[in-house]
Amino acid sequence: MNRKGIIIVVSGFSGAGKGTVMKALTAKYDQYALSVSATTRTPRSGEVNGREYFFVTTEEFEKMIEEDGLIEHAKYVNHYYGTPRKYVEDKLANGIDVILEIEIQGALQIKEQYKDAVLLFITPPSADELEKRLRGRGTETDEVIRKRLGRAKEESVGIEKYDYIVVNDKLDECVENVHRIISAAHCSPDRNIEFIDDIRKQLEKY
Amino acid sequence: MNRKGIIIVVSGFSGAGKGTVMKALTAKYDQYALSVSATTRTPRSGEVNGREYFFVTTEEFEKMIEEDGLIEHAKYVNHYYGTPRKYVEDKLANGIDVILEIEIQGALQIKEQYKDAVLLFITPPSADELEKRLRGRGTETDEVIRKRLGRAKEESVGIEKYDYIVVNDKLDECVENVHRIISAAHCSPDRNIEFIDDIRKQLEKY
Repeated sequence: MNRKGIIIVVSGFSGAGKGTVMKALTAKYDQYALSVSATTRTPRSGEVNGREYFFVTTEEFEKMIEEDGLIEHAKYVNHYYGTPRKYVEDKLANGIDVILEIEIQGALQIKEQYKDAVLLFITPPSADELEKRLRGRGTETDEVIRKRLGRAKEESVGIEKYDYIVVNDKLDECVENVHRIISAAHCSPDRNIEFIDDIRKQLEKY
Repeated sequence: MNRKGIIIVVSGFSGAGKGTVMKALTAKYDQYALSVSATTRTPRSGEVNGREYFFVTTEEFEKMIEEDGLIEHAKYVNHYYGTPRKYVEDKLANGIDVILEIEIQGALQIKEQYKDAVLLFITPPSADELEKRLRGRGTETDEVIRKRLGRAKEESVGIEKYDYIVVNDKLDECVENVHRIISAAHCSPDRNIEFIDDIRKQLEKY
């Protein structure tokens, strides 16, 4: 079958391990590309422009919005985050599935424009495990951790808007589950209209 | 997560290799059970009652219909075919996914009663390959083969009613694709309401 790329939107509680899962997934399977977002926030130590994010000014970001150069964007803690359109559409055209790691606001914007986008929500097996992981990082103050857990509570309201919920208990299993979900999505009749038309035409002679 | 069984309905052109795929799938993974249909047709050589089918009389079959003992039934070439309810519901309650190999009429009856049933359509990669496989069996007359191909043409009209279309080119790949589709289905929010409620309750304290 002629494979067309799918947009995969991945959200999940901060601390669910989304980044790690996506890194492992794209390392293991070469049909996936991770989209790089643009943001107006300052780079953290170790972050490289064009790798973690495209770091841009507020003026540059607003120009991208105006010119319809972003497929979604959102403001979060006073900073803009958005997904550049060109990268995504080039990959899709080449049969590559593009993974976007974004918040629910952006996820729903994507689903409106790209009806066949697949929305995944990644969650730890329990809230206790989430707290444990956030504390385990050892880099955040108690106040920041509380804030993230409070935000997780807010985010949990939207889970049903997602197409799939994936528990990140063991990393390998979670990566495989995400891969299975995306592989399954490629088998929907909507994504195989050409194949179906072809086989129907071929059967006409009987 | 507390896994509940799903009904998987498998249809496909005669000659697509459904039976072989399902046998390989259930041999490889023990979370699947193949439902055994009841039929009024005469057993073919080698067929065992209770293995390929439950062979029953027309009177017995009609009694099962009356007593609501079948979750679907259809008449095809003057014979009844149907799926006994008890076996299916017992397996589902035990977290086993039940696979039903049935025609489109039955598939749609199932979907009406079990909204979350997953409908798969298995197809060979092309109509030529289908004809080759039917002829390759060497057991059917030319007339029977023509009839099956004519029926494939009719069946191809309904493909979009299925949730997934799976090409059976290489057996192993096809088996894996079916497994991926079913695994993905288990990750829908609808099938994880308890888990979602639990994590929401746990997050309330923050």
